[in-house]
Formats: sequence, C-alpha cells, structure tokens
Amino acid sequence: MEKIVSLQNSRIKQIGKLQTKARERKNANLFVIEGAREISLALEGGYLFESVFVCPELSSRSDYPALLKQIPEQIQFEVSEAVFEKIAYREGSDGLLALTRPESHHLSDLKLPSNPFIIILEAVEKPGNLGAILRTADASQANAVIVCDPLTDIYNPNVVRSSVGCLFTVPIAVCSNEEALEFMKCRNIKTFAAELNAAQWYHETDFTTPSAIIMGTEADGLTDFWLKKANARIKIPMRGIIDSLNVSVSTAVITFEAMRQRGFSST
Amino acid sequence: MEKIVSLQNSRIKQIGKLQTKARERKNANLFVIEGAREISLALEGGYLFESVFVCPELSSRSDYPALLKQIPEQIQFEVSEAVFEKIAYREGSDGLLALTRPESHHLSDLKLPSNPFIIILEAVEKPGNLGAILRTADASQANAVIVCDPLTDIYNPNVVRSSVGCLFTVPIAVCSNEEALEFMKCRNIKTFAAELNAAQWYHETDFTTPSAIIMGTEADGLTDFWLKKANARIKIPMRGIIDSLNVSVSTAVITFEAMRQRGFSST
Repeated sequence: MEKIVSLQNSRIKQIGKLQTKARERKNANLFVIEGAREISLALEGGYLFESVFVCPELSSRSDYPALLKQIPEQIQFEVSEAVFEKIAYREGSDGLLALTRPESHHLSDLKLPSNPFIIILEAVEKPGNLGAILRTADASQANAVIVCDPLTDIYNPNVVRSSVGCLFTVPIAVCSNEEALEFMKCRNIKTFAAELNAAQWYHETDFTTPSAIIMGTEADGLTDFWLKKANARIKIPMRGIIDSLNVSVSTAVITFEAMRQRGFSST
Repeated sequence: MEKIVSLQNSRIKQIGKLQTKARERKNANLFVIEGAREISLALEGGYLFESVFVCPELSSRSDYPALLKQIPEQIQFEVSEAVFEKIAYREGSDGLLALTRPESHHLSDLKLPSNPFIIILEAVEKPGNLGAILRTADASQANAVIVCDPLTDIYNPNVVRSSVGCLFTVPIAVCSNEEALEFMKCRNIKTFAAELNAAQWYHETDFTTPSAIIMGTEADGLTDFWLKKANARIKIPMRGIIDSLNVSVSTAVITFEAMRQRGFSST
C-alpha cells in the first residue's frame, strides 16, 4: 500500500477542498466519507470509491480490517497521523476516509410500494437538519426523501456526518418542486403541506393512504407553490411562546404519527 | 450612551471569554445573549441584565428601540460595527447583545400542575440538542425540563441560540439523577426510561397520568440508574439500518405522542 506522509501531496490537498467546497465536489464528481460505519453503509448502498485513506495509528477505534477487504487494494493509501488530522473533518475520527462518486438521484429511479409514505423537503438549507431527517426516514422506514431545490449540497460533509450514514441507505431524489408535484399527482399520492396557520391538525389527518408530507424552511416555511398546490395543509399544535419547532423535529413528529396510524406494520 | 470603539476595551475582551468558556461564565456569574428576540424573551422570563451592547449600524434587522426602553440607560453601551463583529457569536446578528445573570434552577422552584408532563435529560452533551429539546418543550407545553448531571453548561451560547430563546421561558431544573428520581417518587409521577431494547412501545404507553420521560445520550443511552429505577422502559420502533434517532427527535416524538393522548388540551 502506498504511504503518504507529505501534507503537500496533491491528493491530500484535494481532500481539503472537497470537504469545504460544493463546487469542488461538483467539478471533481467526488465527495468525502469519514468513518468505518459510514463507509460500510456506502458500500452496502452500492456507492463507488475512488480512493480510501487509512491511518493505522487510529485504527483501534474501528473494525476496518474486515471492511478494507471489500475494497480493491490499489485504491487504498496509508497516511500518517499528521496527514490524517489534516484531511479529517470530524474530531475523534477512526482513521478511515474515502473519496466517493455521487449517485444519481432521479425521481424516476425511486422504487415505491403501493402505499408509500414520502417526505418532501423544500429548499432545506442546514446540512444538520437534512442529516437528522434522513435518520428519521431510516428509523421510520419512510419510502423516500425528496429534496426540492435544495440550498445545501446533499454530499456536504455535515450531511454525511449528521445522517450517520443514512444518506447512503435512504432512497433520495433531488428535483424541482414542479417535478415532485407532478410525480405525486401521477401516482395518486396525497400531498400534505406543513404550515403554521393551517386549519387541520396533523394528528387528525389520515395518513393511512399514499401520502407525502412537505416541509419548508424554518425561517420562511413553505413557498406559495406548495401552499396552493398541495391537497391539504396541516399543522402541529404550537402552544408556547415560540411558534416554531426545529424542522427535523416537526418532520419526525408528523412522520411517526403517520407510522403509528399505519401500525408500524413491519415491526 | 457611552460608546466603545476599541477592540482592546476590557468589557469587549471579557465577552469573548464568556462566549467560549464555561468556567469564565461560572466565575463571572454572567452569560451572553445575542439577538433582540432572545433578549426580549429573557426580559419576559425575569432575567437580570448586567450590560447591553448596541450596534446602531446593524439595527435595521431588529425592532430593538422599543426593547431598549425597558432596560436602564446606564447599562447600555454603543459599539462600533468592528467591535460588534468581534463580540458576536452568530452570523447575521441584529446588533444587540446582553450580559446576563444566570437564574437558579432548583427542583424545588418548579411549579407543576396536578397532572404534569416532564422531560428529564440525563447527561445531555450537545448544546444544539438541548436547545432543540427546549423548543419542543415550549411548543408542546411540557411542564418542565429537568437536566440531570449535564455535560454542557445550559448557558452555552449554542444552547441560547438553538433554543431560539426558549431557554428563558421553559421551566428548567438542574440536579442529580438521585434528586430527580426522589422528586418524581414524592409526587407520584411515573417515570418512563427511553431505551432501544425496551419491551414496551411508546405509542402503546399511557401518558395521560402524571408522567416523566427520561432520555439518555445518543452515544450511550441511559445509565443503569434510570434503566433500573424507572417505572417502565419504553422504545420507539426503529425499523431501519441505523438503530438510533437524534435525541432531540426521539424526545419530540414521545412528547408529542403524550400530548396527543392528552388531547393537546389547551389548544
């Protein structure tokens, strides 16, 4: 295995740029995954690796020898601890980092059951919120997360990290509002726009038929597009002084109520 | 109003330390609040201000003139934009920052109704999670948040920020696990420990009588103390690949199910 000890190595310098710049990720068609657990979920999800960087001094925190056997040796590079510290984005990393090819996220690639439950996010901006929502989608077994006109790159390192790897296991589509609406209409999936001033309570809404909930940004909520075109508007009781919840929290509250109504059927 | 333009001013230097160091906050018995909305909620919550710093150049983003009338003029200081940028912790700040006295957070000060619903957090470590849980407590009108043996200072600037000021409006007590348990026992409040391997589903649990849910850390869950001493253990169905939710998400899912069972009675 080739060993890299220079901080000036061109591969090492590229990783820094990929961690911080969405444009660099787009141009190189690569993004960074840190951590054995996340890399192993990406492997499971069928992602292709361009290169994998291993720091043996940090290996005690991870079970990566088994994992590395699944990755071609010619794309593995050993790096010194100093080099790994430079490329690692997180604290307490376990000495494994991979450069990975993005997948395509076309609506048409989604495989849905006959009675799907879908989470649609309009203009989501905080990577940490997107990551937390992907964890919720995984735990609740929502059938897809559709990200409309996102203001954050879904391969932002904070999405990878805060999703704990669910980015690689949850079916995700990225598209425009119009495409998402058209998709729902064609499939007779009811659309529920979450909105502070809606007349209908989320817990009095029937989610047992094909359903999609649409969540806006924390600052501005949904745009008129969804407020006007969704089949219904729903709200969560906000009884306090502040009239807003964290968007990942409100998404989870509605999603788990839907799953409760559906009997958490596969549990 | 005195105007401060020097970055070397001793008050300005102190603010930097208060923003970053829990020990400095403890020694000075002061913490920092940024933003007109947060400061106004702290005023409502009865907090005492030591000093308030105003940057008129940034005032267009805020309605603080009305707010400042409620604060004694002798503790107000005008600062230049350069100085404000140095003391501000957030981006896009609205030109208002206050040094504030912490409140006491004794269990015995909590005023509870006859049928309370309480959120207990054991060893919460991420300020952003505590802030999001305080927002959930506000929106759901949980009667108290009890923070046991916290690993984060509740006046950490990230708690202030991520709670959007709910830190100042939600009844909060800080105590040990033992004190919290004793308090619940004395008042016949049932304790429900959230745990991955519990036998009982959260949505099949009766929360209509006096109830407290106990949430652990994301990494390690609850300690044996609560697992052994709580009246029951409950779990959320986790049907995906990852067997964990963000702790602020799981707290909200259980809390809103409890409120649903209670009929969101005050809405």
